[in-house]
Parts: sequence; C-alpha cells; structure tokens
Amino acid sequence: MSQWIGKTGVVVRHVERADATLIDELQRFGVATVHEAQGRKGLLSTSISPIQFGTTISGSAVTVLVSPGDNWMFHVAVEQCQPGDILVVAPSSPCSDGYFGDLLATSVKARGVRALIIDAGVRDTQALREMGFPVWSRAVCAQGTIKETLGSVNVPLVCGDQLVEPGDVVVADDDGVVVVRRGEIQRVVEASRARADLEAQKTLRLASGELGVDIYDMRTRLAEKGLRYVNTLDELDT
Amino acid sequence: MSQWIGKTGVVVRHVERADATLIDELQRFGVATVHEAQGRKGLLSTSISPIQFGTTISGSAVTVLVSPGDNWMFHVAVEQCQPGDILVVAPSSPCSDGYFGDLLATSVKARGVRALIIDAGVRDTQALREMGFPVWSRAVCAQGTIKETLGSVNVPLVCGDQLVEPGDVVVADDDGVVVVRRGEIQRVVEASRARADLEAQKTLRLASGELGVDIYDMRTRLAEKGLRYVNTLDELDT
Amino acid sequence: MSQWIGKTGVVVRHVERADATLIDELQRFGVATVHEAQGRKGLLSTSISPIQFGTTISGSAVTVLVSPGDNWMFHVAVEQCQPGDILVVAPSSPCSDGYFGDLLATSVKARGVRALIIDAGVRDTQALREMGFPVWSRAVCAQGTIKETLGSVNVPLVCGDQLVEPGDVVVADDDGVVVVRRGEIQRVVEASRARADLEAQKTLRLASGELGVDIYDMRTRLAEKGLRYVNTLDELDT
Amino acid sequence: MSQWIGKTGVVVRHVERADATLIDELQRFGVATVHEAQGRKGLLSTSISPIQFGTTISGSAVTVLVSPGDNWMFHVAVEQCQPGDILVVAPSSPCSDGYFGDLLATSVKARGVRALIIDAGVRDTQALREMGFPVWSRAVCAQGTIKETLGSVNVPLVCGDQLVEPGDVVVADDDGVVVVRRGEIQRVVEASRARADLEAQKTLRLASGELGVDIYDMRTRLAEKGLRYVNTLDELDT
Amino acid sequence: MSQWIGKTGVVVRHVERADATLIDELQRFGVATVHEAQGRKGLLSTSISPIQFGTTISGSAVTVLVSPGDNWMFHVAVEQCQPGDILVVAPSSPCSDGYFGDLLATSVKARGVRALIIDAGVRDTQALREMGFPVWSRAVCAQGTIKETLGSVNVPLVCGDQLVEPGDVVVADDDGVVVVRRGEIQRVVEASRARADLEAQKTLRLASGELGVDIYDMRTRLAEKGLRYVNTLDELDT
Amino acid sequence: MSQWIGKTGVVVRHVERADATLIDELQRFGVATVHEAQGRKGLLSTSISPIQFGTTISGSAVTVLVSPGDNWMFHVAVEQCQPGDILVVAPSSPCSDGYFGDLLATSVKARGVRALIIDAGVRDTQALREMGFPVWSRAVCAQGTIKETLGSVNVPLVCGDQLVEPGDVVVADDDGVVVVRRGEIQRVVEASRARADLEAQKTLRLASGELGVDIYDMRTRLAEKGLRYVNTLDELDT
Repeated sequence: MSQWIGKTGVVVRHVERADATLIDELQRFGVATVHEAQGRKGLLSTSISPIQFGTTISGSAVTVLVSPGDNWMFHVAVEQCQPGDILVVAPSSPCSDGYFGDLLATSVKARGVRALIIDAGVRDTQALREMGFPVWSRAVCAQGTIKETLGSVNVPLVCGDQLVEPGDVVVADDDGVVVVRRGEIQRVVEASRARADLEAQKTLRLASGELGVDIYDMRTRLAEKGLRYVNTLDELDT
Repeated sequence: MSQWIGKTGVVVRHVERADATLIDELQRFGVATVHEAQGRKGLLSTSISPIQFGTTISGSAVTVLVSPGDNWMFHVAVEQCQPGDILVVAPSSPCSDGYFGDLLATSVKARGVRALIIDAGVRDTQALREMGFPVWSRAVCAQGTIKETLGSVNVPLVCGDQLVEPGDVVVADDDGVVVVRRGEIQRVVEASRARADLEAQKTLRLASGELGVDIYDMRTRLAEKGLRYVNTLDELDT
Repeated sequence: MSQWIGKTGVVVRHVERADATLIDELQRFGVATVHEAQGRKGLLSTSISPIQFGTTISGSAVTVLVSPGDNWMFHVAVEQCQPGDILVVAPSSPCSDGYFGDLLATSVKARGVRALIIDAGVRDTQALREMGFPVWSRAVCAQGTIKETLGSVNVPLVCGDQLVEPGDVVVADDDGVVVVRRGEIQRVVEASRARADLEAQKTLRLASGELGVDIYDMRTRLAEKGLRYVNTLDELDT
Repeated sequence: MSQWIGKTGVVVRHVERADATLIDELQRFGVATVHEAQGRKGLLSTSISPIQFGTTISGSAVTVLVSPGDNWMFHVAVEQCQPGDILVVAPSSPCSDGYFGDLLATSVKARGVRALIIDAGVRDTQALREMGFPVWSRAVCAQGTIKETLGSVNVPLVCGDQLVEPGDVVVADDDGVVVVRRGEIQRVVEASRARADLEAQKTLRLASGELGVDIYDMRTRLAEKGLRYVNTLDELDT
Repeated sequence: MSQWIGKTGVVVRHVERADATLIDELQRFGVATVHEAQGRKGLLSTSISPIQFGTTISGSAVTVLVSPGDNWMFHVAVEQCQPGDILVVAPSSPCSDGYFGDLLATSVKARGVRALIIDAGVRDTQALREMGFPVWSRAVCAQGTIKETLGSVNVPLVCGDQLVEPGDVVVADDDGVVVVRRGEIQRVVEASRARADLEAQKTLRLASGELGVDIYDMRTRLAEKGLRYVNTLDELDT
Repeated sequence: MSQWIGKTGVVVRHVERADATLIDELQRFGVATVHEAQGRKGLLSTSISPIQFGTTISGSAVTVLVSPGDNWMFHVAVEQCQPGDILVVAPSSPCSDGYFGDLLATSVKARGVRALIIDAGVRDTQALREMGFPVWSRAVCAQGTIKETLGSVNVPLVCGDQLVEPGDVVVADDDGVVVVRRGEIQRVVEASRARADLEAQKTLRLASGELGVDIYDMRTRLAEKGLRYVNTLDELDT
C-alpha cells in the first residue's frame, strides 16, 4: 500500500466503504471518545481546526492529493463522491492557499458530501458557515488556486500527520479530527459505546460531588508514589 | 512615492478618496471575489484576521504608522478621518501590544470610521464586538501602549505584506483583507460584478448536481495530462 | 518562596484567599482595566486564550503543577478547591495534550470552581461551552493524558510567563488573563474603580465627537516633538 | 499494513533491509536529487532539521514509536539495530522534550547506527556534534524523559508527515530528510544517477554563462504565455 | 508606481542602478548601522534569515515576482542581471518550496550576481555554502518547483514586509536584510560613515571601562524620570 | 518576593552572589546534567537559544527588566555588574527588537560580564561572535531601541517562563539555559558531580556495546508491562 502514497495522476473509482450505520453511530461519540476507544491513535494534527463551532460529523473518506496552489483535482473528486462521504485533502507540499470555497461546497453538497478535511487553506468561510457545510482546515485564505497540475483521487495520503486511506472513517468536532481504519470500525464503535456508558455513570457521580480520587481509588497509589499533604510549605523544611 | 514609506513625524491632511458609491459596492462582493477580480493581488497576510465573525466591510484607507508599543498617532489620526474611512495601521517594528480598545473605538466611530485593520494587537475585544466596531488584527493583547514617540498619518506603509497608500480602498471579511488601488476601483468593481454574475450562474448548475469537470469542459485536458482512471490501485501494476 | 517553584509531590491544603467581595468586584472591570490599574504587570502570555467568547471571570487561584501528558494531579486538586476558586495549571515541560474535558469539568463545577486557566491543552470543548464552564488554554487537543507521575497542588508556578502563587487572584476575559497578587487586591480594586470612572467620563466626551488630542491636551507636546502637518507629501520636498 | 500504525507494545525483530550498496550510493546524491528522482514524494516536514551542518547520510530505517515525554523504547530499539541503520522516531502525540543525548548516542553508535531522525527533541547537542553522530530533530531541549510507558519498535509510523516503514531507506542532509520505499530503491538509484549526470552537464554550461532560457529552450513558451519585455513600466500604459 | 506591484507577465529590461562605489561602501557598515543611518526604516522581516554565518553583502536589487511553487521567472531574470546585482524574490502567495538550488546559483554567479534574498525556500544549501553563494531565505526545503506560470522581473514587490523597487540597494548580514532607496544612497552612506566613526570612538571609551550612563550623560534624566537606587528591595517598604 | 516582579523604576545595588568556585564548577556539567541534578526544574523556554555553537557558561544573574523597544536600563545595569555576572533580561511585554549589540557587549565585557540571556532580540550578531561574547536570545533583529522608559535592575522577573532572582545562578550551553536557585547551588553541584560520574561509567559500558536494557535491568519490567517480541507483524494476527 505504502508505495501508492504520493502517487499522482490516478483516480481510483472503487472504494470499499464501511457500514453506514456504524459510521453514523460514531458521530454521536465525538473525537475524544473515539480516539480513546481505539487506543489513542489516529488523531490528526491540531493545526487542522474547524472553521465553525458546535458541529460533529462522521463519514467515509474520499482522499484527494493536490499540488501546491492547484485545486484541479477537487473537480475530478466530486464525481467519485457518494452521500455520506467526507473529502480528505492534502497538498504534496505545504500550502495555505484557499483551495475550496462556496462554489465547490455547492457542488459537493449536491453529491451528499458531509464535510471537508484539508491540510491547507479554504476561503468564502462566511458563506460556508451560512450554507452549513462544515470544514476543518489548516488555514483560511482568500488566495485562489490554479488548475494546471494533476494530483490523485482515492490514493492513500498523509493528512495532518496521519495516514488516511480511501474508505477510512473520519470523525471531526470542535476538538479536531480522528481517523478510524475501515476494518476496525466495528471494534471502535463497540469500545466507544462502552466508554460513553461508563462516562455517563461517572458524570452522575462527579456531578453529585463525589471525588475522582475516591471513585478511581487513587489514594493508596498516590501515597505509594510519595505524595505528601502539608498545611503550608513551611512544613517541608522540617 | 516609495521614499515616504516609513517616514515619521508627518500628518498629511489631504487624501484623495475614491467614489463612495463604488467603495460601497465592493462591500457586497467580499474579499475572495475582489481579490480574483483585480488579478489576484493586494491580499494582506492571513496573520491579520477578524476578531468577529460574519462582517464584511469596505472603505477608504487612512494610514497610521506607529512606533512599537506606542499608540499616540491614533489620536492624531482621528481628526483626519471622514465617514466611510477605515484605519490601516502598521507598527515600525513587530509588536503585539493592544494599541486600540473601546475608548478609541468610541472616538473613531463618532467620526464615522467603519473599521480598523492593524498589523499589531488590540484589546477590549468583547466591548468592540458589542459595539459592533469591526477589527482585523494580528493579535489580541491587553497590554497597553504609551504616548511618547511620533509616527505618521497618511503616509504609504506596508501592512500585512501589502503596500497601502492613503485613499486606497480596503475590503475585509471573514477570509481576511484585500487592498484595491484607488485608481483601479472602477475596473475592479466592474470585474467583480462580472465575476459575481458568473458565479451565480455556476452555483445554480452545481447545486443541481452538474459536475465542474463538465461545466468547465475539463475531461479532454485531464486526459491529455495523463490522468488515468482505475477501479483499484492493483490495476496500476499491470 | 522561589525555592518551591517546580517542587513536585506536595499538596498544600491551607491557602490564604483574598476577600471574596473584592475578588468579585474585579470581575466587572475586565483584564485590560485591571492590568492598567496595577501598573501594567501580571498579564499572562497571549498564547493562553479563551475557548469561548464573551465571558469574564475572577477568582482565587488553586495552582496545579502537572507532568507532561499526565493529568493525575487534577484529581488531587479537586479536593482542595472551594467555591470561587480558579484552577491555574502549568506542565513541567511544554505539552499540548488535552488534560481536561467534560468529566473533570463536571467534577470541579460541583465544587464551585469558576474556571480553568491552563498552559497546555483541553478537550471536549463543545461540551465545555455547553456546560458554561469557561476555559483559557494554550491548545485544544483530543489527545488524552495518563496518570503515572506526581506533580503538586498549591505550590507557586509559572503559567503563561507569569508567576502565580496559590491565593493570587485571577481575572480573565476575551482579551486574556491577568494575575493580581493577593496582598495587592485592595489597592488594585480601588485603582480599577478610579480608572473605570475616568474611562466612563471620557467615553461620553469621545462619543460626542470631542477629539482625544483636545481632551488629553496633546497638541503642544506633538508640536514640540516636531510633528508636521502638510496638505500633501510634496510639501516636504520644499 | 495501515492497521499497525500507532500500535504499541510490540517489537518486530525481523526487518527486510535494502541492498547495502544501493543504500550507500544514495548518500552521494543528497536529498533534493533523490526527492526529484523518485517523483517528488517522501519529503519529511521541514520542521525536522539538522543539528549540524555539512553532513549527508543514508541508511535503513529502524522505526521507534514513543510516548510523549518517555524514551523507554530507545533502549529496546538499540538491540534491534544493525550497522548501517538509522533510527526514525516519532512520538504518539507532539512533544519537544529531549529524548536522546550523548549516552544513547554512544550506545547506538556502538551498534553501527548512522543517524537519528526524530519528530521530537534531543539534548546534549554539543556533545553529539563533537561525537560526529548526526541528528535531524524537531527541537533541541534539555528537558529529559521518563521510562514508564511502552511504545513499539519496527512498526510503521508517521514521522514528519511521511509514512515510514521499517526497512525503508532514509537520506538526510542540510536540506532535510527524504524517505525512499525499500522496494523502489533500485529505480530511485538509477533515476538519481541519471539526474546527477544531467545536472553535471548543465552545471558546466551554466557556469560558462549560457542561459537557462536557452538551454531549456524556454523563449517560445514564455512568449506564448504572454510574457512581455519592456524597457520601462511606462510602456505598459501605451 | 504602486499600481505595478503584483503585476505579472512583464520583464523590465532597463533598471537604474545606484553608484557602484556607494553600493560597495555600504557593505562595510552592515545592516544595523545602515538601518539606523537611514532613520530606522527598510528592515526586512526577521523571518528572512541567512543560510550561512559571517557574510555581509551589498548590491543592486533585481526583483523577481514568482508564483507559488513555480520558479520559471528565475531563468528569465538571469538574463537581466549584471555584476553587482542581488536577486530579491517574492512569491505571490506564501510558499516555502525550494525555488533555488546549486544549478541556478551556478547560473547567476556566472553573471556576477552577489546574493539571493527570497521570501520563500531554497535547497542544496550545503552546496550553496560550499560555492560561497550567500542566501537569505524564509525556509530551507528540498521540495522543487515547476515552470508553468508567469511572474515578472523588475516590477516593484513586497519582500519580507518591505517594498523593494528594482535598483534599490540591499544590504544583508547575519542580522538580516535592509533595503535602501536608490535615491537615498548618498545620504545613507554619509550618515553611515558618521555613525560608524562615532561608534568607533565610543567603543574605545566603553572598552576602557567608562560607563554609558556617564558617556551619554544619562544620570540626570534617569533621576527626573524617578529612578530609585536602593540597597535591597526591603527599603521600598519604608 | 513576588510583589516585586514587574516593579519598575528601581535599581537594587546589593545582590547576594553564590560561591564563585561552585558557580564555575557548574559550567563543566552543562545544562542537561544540571537540570537533571536539581530535579528537572528551572529550564528556560527553548525559544531562547544560543547565537553561537559550542559555548558553555555559568554565572551569577543580574536581572534587567526593560520596556518593549527600550534598552535604557542596560546602561544602568552595567554599573551593577561584577566579574562573573550574567545579564538576564526580560521585556515587560513581548518584543523582538535588537536591544543589545557590539557597543553594549564591549561595555559589559569590560566589567567582566560573561554572557547575556535575553527574552527578546539582539543585533550585531556577527560582531558578538567575533568578540567571543556569548548570547542566548529569543530573536536576532537589527531593529534598534529607544531610551525613554524606566525598567528595573535586580528585581525578580520571569525570563523564558522561569522566575529568575538576582544572584540566582545561570548555566547555558548549546541546549539552552537553566537557572539554579542561589540557595541550592551546593546541593546541585554535588548532585551534578554524582550524575556526571555515573554517566562517565555508563558511557564506557555503552561504548563497549553493552545494552541499556541490560545495564538498567529493564527486561523484566518491560515484560510485565506486556511488551511482545515478534518476528513479523503477521504473528500478531494469530
């Protein structure tokens, strides 16, 4: 697989997608829970952040490799999208230009695309927010792009320090973006459910004023590590 | 002209301003469209970003050159402002102090100033948002400034990597800030209108599900460049 | 005192807190006014910024020193908190992991804690905003932390480039965060009142169109410094 | 393969390595030539830079996944190293602590390891330079690490925005770091030779004063694109 | 003039250059002295820094406007260069790709070009240092560029936050880069000479142990400002 | 003590200094060892880095609080310096201007000052390197400063995220800067000696090819934590 990373000039038409019900269920857990549930892996760099507040999405990745300052492959990618997909885009070298604006958003929205994750810039952000098309990007920049150089659609790529393969599942919210391997979604959904249930119980206890040191039974281990309680720092001198 | 960049100790009272109707019309197009319409030039660095969401403004630049950590020239500049103006401020060396807060905003608002663009910091940002006085700045910082050193008002300066001359026209929205030369506004308004009309048509077609590759007739050129469609990457081995 | 900075493995139970009425009064002035009123000191680095808009808080600092990637001491700290406190947290080496999320927020909120100031990352930010628990942080990151290494509670520490001692008073708003020494709060409240009154008067005069150069009587001093008014820059050649 | 990225708690003992003669030959081309020769892919982020000047190396990757602030797996990795290897290290969340210093350098040097590439920090940099052990890192920091949490050795990982698999070939010089897939090394060496030969010829012609626009026959295409030569900008008005 | 900033598709053949003797003399003063001598203006952003240590140069600017990721105009620019020139290059949107390497350095060196100042990236930096061709750049990156899009040669541009016009004089050393207007060079050389002479005298007095507070007669003014000398801080309480 | 942080307008003449022999001995250990020896505290932010390679220094801190863009207090500080001192300088708000150049270096060198640590910028860096006056700074910038506003000499301040009190001991090398409390120097020197001796022994064993996992007896604990050795990742499936 790794030999295809960075391969340009190819559009892969057939992408295995995960079960739609499972993908949708991931949306209700959010990024932090899913990231924990899958063993703390798959988190994209925090330099990719939302342009809106309060939106959580999940979907199936359609990957787009683009040249710096060139958004030609977006137009090629649209045709490969299905309802429930999320565009995951990375440039072949760092670029903060505005690759994507309201016209492309209109186009991909018409195909049922749920969101854009891009390791580069976007523009028309006010319009994007008004349209309700969610975006996670590295930059906001009105600088446009050209259409001269080929990239690829649906090849594996690295976006925000994480490998993303076509058909991988993406979850994004105000905290950032996490990728779940397609083959692991069943396991991750189950672990997320278990974790969410556990957190719901703990929330009740904590809200009632119970202490985490008691709920998690930390006092013995803290003492073993040598934690010392004093009334004032002066006691340490003695 | 260039010899006046960075010149301190001068206030220029007379500034040619562009036609007010044209200035106001630019506001409806937004930064990305205006930037494209004038040939992709004049975009300020994205490190100058809005402190509010959802506001688009246009206006005539009154430029203010300030010393680092010193906002004395703001008070001098107020007197030179007219309704419809926008303050464009740059420090003579990088500084993120809060040069501008609610008091100065009250003062310039009383003169009809529409906005502040500053390659430095501002403070009292909550109050500024509540007053509805829009600001694009490099930083938010409560650190105040002193009033000891002269700068200038209405000399040309570089703000956010762009030369701005007094009387140039500034457009700003959630994407950032673009400057239009005073002498080019007629041409830029016309090109913006044409571009906006064209985009409106395309939006309708894209929203109906038509593809950009067809609307823009890209398929032939993509093939000439060698774009290859495959069902899976394995086909590339053959 | 300085010898305790960075001291790990200690929980100090007794913290002198400032007068609650004075602490609460500071909240109405906001960060910029308090910072000015105490002589322009105590401002935390602007890299610590709010995750919400429009909230101003004040409170008494409970300090928490944590290891990088380890939030164990939060659980220990909760027990030391009283209503009106604010957690001020710094890692012993730079770390942007998400130390704090909705579970901990539930726990500290149940103790009456007003806010979190952290020179590191937080997560579950959408939930934090929905709960109305205000946070100022260096980063937002879904990456969780472990519970392996001791830090300390209520030792002096450096957070955002400022020394904070337990019981110091913290004020935070959209502009950032400022720390007031516990022993100076009386003086700072009085100076803040005076400053706020003065600003209220000036706001009225400026809103009516009076100029700062006149209100502050700047014209003579500007002339002495050599400020020159010209109609156009061409006059400077003569 | 991708399911193993980020997998912790595993040491893979058997790694296929590329032909040693080919690996060594890559060293003489340097990063820019190898990057071009393999189709402009595989370049690590420029945030990973050398701590020394003037050293070019190539070698076979032994990958090490570490926890933030924890260098335990380095000690495990040493045993898996062979002469000619290069350690490629990435933390599971961003961390700039100094994972590696003169003691570890002594240890890996004794095993014949050629260099360290690390998406985190190192320390003892003066000693490392004096020992002649080359390092490319994201940070220099004297802050040490602990030995509490497992990572992995020889699992695929993302380092500096690039996927690296154990046995991939790494080339590094003053410009940065590039990774070559193990299976592509033959092709990349050949393409590098061809490119280096071509550049040697061009260097001679350019050094003699011949122009690139003539050597590469660019004048016609420049004219077709509309390039206009004028004596002064005033001609453009006419 | 300002209307030509950012203008693409033009090569201006005729550039007025300053007197060569004056240009050369500026080299001996270095950046800090020249910057002071011309009234603290013209300093490029410190994000443009040298790739070598210990080199000071001065020369006449040939400006090159390039597209992001596209170095075509370098080849066009070479033909416009004369001995003593310095290339000053800015991309039309931010880009850190390696626009310039040993081949181009060979070519421009053959024309007598003295240095490159670029608000973007370079590569082959080890070779550039070995060739003795000095460079000040924003980035070092092995990522190459394409040759598809026109820029311009010898139009005014903004590089590192400063306007540079063709024929302006550039001085660069380990501290950074400063631009001197062509028409001001006589005045700046004279002021630099005076300043350098004065500094030489002061250096002798300071080296002999005389204090700056005495040489510059600061004690009275410090006292007027209220500076207070105490033996220990405890005295301040009284 | 904390009430004096940020206090302006004061020069403290009497500073307790640590034993000169102990201070000098710290120089031979370097930053990483001293930082470990004192319990991993006191490390300044890595954003303060050396302008030279290969120099290690130690000395007694004379602290200087300066205003942004104003180096007046340097001249006041010189008089307070003794042979063996190190200037530790912080601005009252972030500033990257060049506060210090060859003239001031000449002056402080004549007083026997060993180095400058500054949380701001310096200039004349080539001259400083040639003079052999070592500097650790946040920035290099030719922009000069003015002499208008009082700061303080020998008040406690925060520099690079660490509290520094006058008379504290500073150690700096290529890795960065660490501060040692004056009252703890005896203990830190002893711990550094012990640590250096231990490292010397380990270096011999590691250089001979012995493995850290054996020397430190890690194998049992690694196994307990669940570390698994496999020949290839495929074994994990079974």
